[in-house]
Amino acid sequence: MVEAARLISVIGAGQADQRQKEHAFRVGELLARAGWGVVCGGLSGVMAEACRGCASAGGLTVGLLPGTERQAANPWVQVILPTGLGQARNALVVLAGQGAIAVGGGGGTLSEIGHALKAGRPVVSLGSWEVAGVPQAESPEQAVGMILELTAA
Amino acid sequence: MVEAARLISVIGAGQADQRQKEHAFRVGELLARAGWGVVCGGLSGVMAEACRGCASAGGLTVGLLPGTERQAANPWVQVILPTGLGQARNALVVLAGQGAIAVGGGGGTLSEIGHALKAGRPVVSLGSWEVAGVPQAESPEQAVGMILELTAA
Amino acid sequence: MVEAARLISVIGAGQADQRQKEHAFRVGELLARAGWGVVCGGLSGVMAEACRGCASAGGLTVGLLPGTERQAANPWVQVILPTGLGQARNALVVLAGQGAIAVGGGGGTLSEIGHALKAGRPVVSLGSWEVAGVPQAESPEQAVGMILELTAA
Amino acid sequence: MVEAARLISVIGAGQADQRQKEHAFRVGELLARAGWGVVCGGLSGVMAEACRGCASAGGLTVGLLPGTERQAANPWVQVILPTGLGQARNALVVLAGQGAIAVGGGGGTLSEIGHALKAGRPVVSLGSWEVAGVPQAESPEQAVGMILELTAA
Repeated sequence: MVEAARLISVIGAGQADQRQKEHAFRVGELLARAGWGVVCGGLSGVMAEACRGCASAGGLTVGLLPGTERQAANPWVQVILPTGLGQARNALVVLAGQGAIAVGGGGGTLSEIGHALKAGRPVVSLGSWEVAGVPQAESPEQAVGMILELTAA
Repeated sequence: MVEAARLISVIGAGQADQRQKEHAFRVGELLARAGWGVVCGGLSGVMAEACRGCASAGGLTVGLLPGTERQAANPWVQVILPTGLGQARNALVVLAGQGAIAVGGGGGTLSEIGHALKAGRPVVSLGSWEVAGVPQAESPEQAVGMILELTAA
Repeated sequence: MVEAARLISVIGAGQADQRQKEHAFRVGELLARAGWGVVCGGLSGVMAEACRGCASAGGLTVGLLPGTERQAANPWVQVILPTGLGQARNALVVLAGQGAIAVGGGGGTLSEIGHALKAGRPVVSLGSWEVAGVPQAESPEQAVGMILELTAA
Repeated sequence: MVEAARLISVIGAGQADQRQKEHAFRVGELLARAGWGVVCGGLSGVMAEACRGCASAGGLTVGLLPGTERQAANPWVQVILPTGLGQARNALVVLAGQGAIAVGGGGGTLSEIGHALKAGRPVVSLGSWEVAGVPQAESPEQAVGMILELTAA
């Protein structure tokens, strides 16, 4: 018997501004320090920075790509999973984590928030969509603290 | 060569209140009268009423079920498609329509709104989530009018 | 309550030779005459000819496309469903029918035969893969006769 | 930048006989010794034994479950990915590996062989389906040797 990795989904867009990237990196780093890995959509922007932050602190990174080519993964994904499912892979990204942190993001991220709510996964927003049932965090530290508390519940 | 059916996605929860059901029925009926069919998640509540309304006016109804059993479809679906994909089928529901009308709904509906925004499909909310980029309609008549105008654009 | 369409999955490659195309057309035509519609992958080759044959005899045609663009559908699909799922849509093609007829085909068709066996859908091969549990038909007439008998069982 | 895990898909049924289980264990063990991890469907039988063998030799194990519950994973999966996709997840299992080894198996395994052929992934059969384009191995040692040679090509 092995110990299964504990993963948090970090969701957000491939196009992100500097502040969102810094938030994503820090979220990944803090999760790794707390013993958690990151699962995400495997691409650039928020996804890449969350992986980079997580990997920099020794955490496991998992990327569920929309396409079929491994080469599309950002360079900080350790477990590359090309799904070929397009946007339907968003449902898998939130199922793979025990909770989710949303950093910025557009329609794809909104679909992930919806899937998380439907699947009963807690979600915290860090400068992402304001949606009923999704608490807002002010900082990466607060977002990670909140999600770890919510997943422990 | 055949004429492909023109479909609008009607999205909303399996659990709906009386007003939402009436709205869904009327949306389906108005779409059929305008020459459109309805595609939905194939289950009960908003989905069933939209199909019932559409079928009552001679429109085509298509249901993309989350499970593998045809028997789960509501009695007003003509083209029953068991997907077995669970909630990932939500991405398909919005891709199948040229636009979407959201009636009430929870996390699943929110995921569909997100998928629609990501895929560039117009969405109109009729008592559903208030989300940037999703215009609010006051009545079934207005919702159908808006979506047909947006899909024509 | 409406009567749900009865569908048979016709599976086979987008690249097909003349004989396979004739077989696919005839299979579609015979299914339509027997009161059945065709569901397929929506593209060219065997898929297009099965739809053309079915539509020529007044049957319903449904296409589950691998991509997200409606334009990829062949001109004889009435219900166009862009899934965006890539090859994973093959699982849906066989779930949508009450049985399947395989005409020629490569790896994609083999995956559909496997999905059909797993899902308990009967499959008949018409010049397709020789696989245990899949009876071989010698002609379109025999293939359609066999599948309608098997689905009635 | 991190080094991405190199994975081989081990495919086969949840119900397996003693010889198939021994083969699966040994395949997993040999892959791990050669520096490869195992990705599979995450359940019992061939999937569980391949994971157990791989983990016993320090290799990474990844399981793509058909359902939404982590608890369904066998105890030797380190990266548990509940997909909720049902059998459509088979397409993902073969995309995730750079090649596949089939050990025994039924319709689900046949679908995975088909998906692998379609996606251009090499597949080796170890007492599994006899299909054109899929070389047969006589032993776990030969199967692993063959797949590593084919993926290096």
